[in-house]
Amino acid sequence: MDDRELQKCLRGIVSPEYLEDDCAVLPIGGRYLVASTDMLHERTDFPPGMTEWQIGWMSVAVTLSDIASMGAAPAAVLLAVGLDRPERLVPIMEGARDCCRAYGAELAGGDLDAHRELTIVSSGIGTVAPEHLVRRRGSRPGDLVAVTGPLGEAQAGLEGYERHRRALLEPQPRVMEGQALGRAGVTSMMDISDGLALSLYDLAAVNRCGFAIEAARLPLPAGVPEDEARELALYGGGDFELLFTCARDRLPIPGVETYVIGRVIAEPQVLADGRMLERRGYRHAWAD
Amino acid sequence: MDDRELQKCLRGIVSPEYLEDDCAVLPIGGRYLVASTDMLHERTDFPPGMTEWQIGWMSVAVTLSDIASMGAAPAAVLLAVGLDRPERLVPIMEGARDCCRAYGAELAGGDLDAHRELTIVSSGIGTVAPEHLVRRRGSRPGDLVAVTGPLGEAQAGLEGYERHRRALLEPQPRVMEGQALGRAGVTSMMDISDGLALSLYDLAAVNRCGFAIEAARLPLPAGVPEDEARELALYGGGDFELLFTCARDRLPIPGVETYVIGRVIAEPQVLADGRMLERRGYRHAWAD
Repeated sequence: MDDRELQKCLRGIVSPEYLEDDCAVLPIGGRYLVASTDMLHERTDFPPGMTEWQIGWMSVAVTLSDIASMGAAPAAVLLAVGLDRPERLVPIMEGARDCCRAYGAELAGGDLDAHRELTIVSSGIGTVAPEHLVRRRGSRPGDLVAVTGPLGEAQAGLEGYERHRRALLEPQPRVMEGQALGRAGVTSMMDISDGLALSLYDLAAVNRCGFAIEAARLPLPAGVPEDEARELALYGGGDFELLFTCARDRLPIPGVETYVIGRVIAEPQVLADGRMLERRGYRHAWAD
Repeated sequence: MDDRELQKCLRGIVSPEYLEDDCAVLPIGGRYLVASTDMLHERTDFPPGMTEWQIGWMSVAVTLSDIASMGAAPAAVLLAVGLDRPERLVPIMEGARDCCRAYGAELAGGDLDAHRELTIVSSGIGTVAPEHLVRRRGSRPGDLVAVTGPLGEAQAGLEGYERHRRALLEPQPRVMEGQALGRAGVTSMMDISDGLALSLYDLAAVNRCGFAIEAARLPLPAGVPEDEARELALYGGGDFELLFTCARDRLPIPGVETYVIGRVIAEPQVLADGRMLERRGYRHAWAD
């Protein structure tokens, strides 16, 4: 069983509106509050060789990326840290602080605990004007499908391409881009953390339409042989780019690097070059 | 090193205003948003024999208690669940949902992950009118010191007193009481999760005054020999009562059970019956 299957068990317990998106959305005063929480731990989320500072940075970056994918501006991040060794705390929190600072969020405290395995849960809050909120639901046939940058770089870094190691270890969440896309009126959006293919299927699951992408249009990681690069771009994990759909006349969007990779189709399918795209990528898996 | 000492290391990294209280406070529109996160895991936080439903209930209760201690109304809770066995998820989430429902909060999703040890991080958001926000800082010499109910019941339950087992396993956060105390203008407040003694010292640490309590006034767990009951009330962990200070003329507060246990004094000390109170209680500890 993987986490997508397990999530289905929650349908009767958690209201479906909270299960669809990267963040929960709550109306507060005249604005929308978005909130997200992400659990990371050593064994599965922090690549070997990652420094404590990078662990802190990445823990915040995943949450800022979720907030960005809703078109929202980050306000605050809380970190719950389960520590195997107390001396790791300070450099982790310094990395977290630096990532918050870089993107205009407050590191607003959290919780500390002893744990056998380093475990960090990052929770974040952002705000957005109701008319600029973007959800996963909203793709319309005829819209373009686009991403904000090269795909597969983090996975390339993990597989030994030194030039992409920074994308793996110090990911840059698309905080300004997400807000610009929200203001520009894109129709649906999410961040691509488990690979493009799985993300397209996630998007298809909450929309009454499908996606047809062209492999030749994928922005690929530089310096990687083309076949391998395409494999990484479609199925690699760890990317922090945004995937979105929008009407043709909305592009270009000032200040946002945009790569059109396909279009929204009426049929509920995910196609690459006209053939069904394999549904695989990075998944958290439990032994059955 | 314990978590209070470790927290001191963060003083240069996280702004002190976020380290003092049970929640971070963020102005949003005309209201204050409060946010809190708590990490719980099997080995140290869930007593043996606790059901999955109770684990879910308690995970939410700790966060609702933090929100209540600021005088705020809970809005939403997010749960990040690191699961050792997937079949535990549904009953845990049912307990979480039922606790949210009982106190008027939304269970607004979260994150799932595989973990060797069951680990749950509960993050919550609440709101409060600025004039009703209560912080730990604010005690004034001459104020009364009070609590909202009997102390030491959870610890009594842990030590085998069957009638107190429910206080241990299905704690009732003081959600309505916290808001009523905020509206009544109490001067400082926190929840007593690690025992009354440690809580009084935590309160003293952020106030320029001290506290003098009278052991004979402590509301004790029923059915426990008096000496033992007093020990549990002062030093036992797992309580969910609120500790607050307020001017004499604010009491009684309609709808809130209140036990006055002492008064705020000008000297920065914590006294019980005129002698220094021992500074001990429940602490998360790391091996040095």
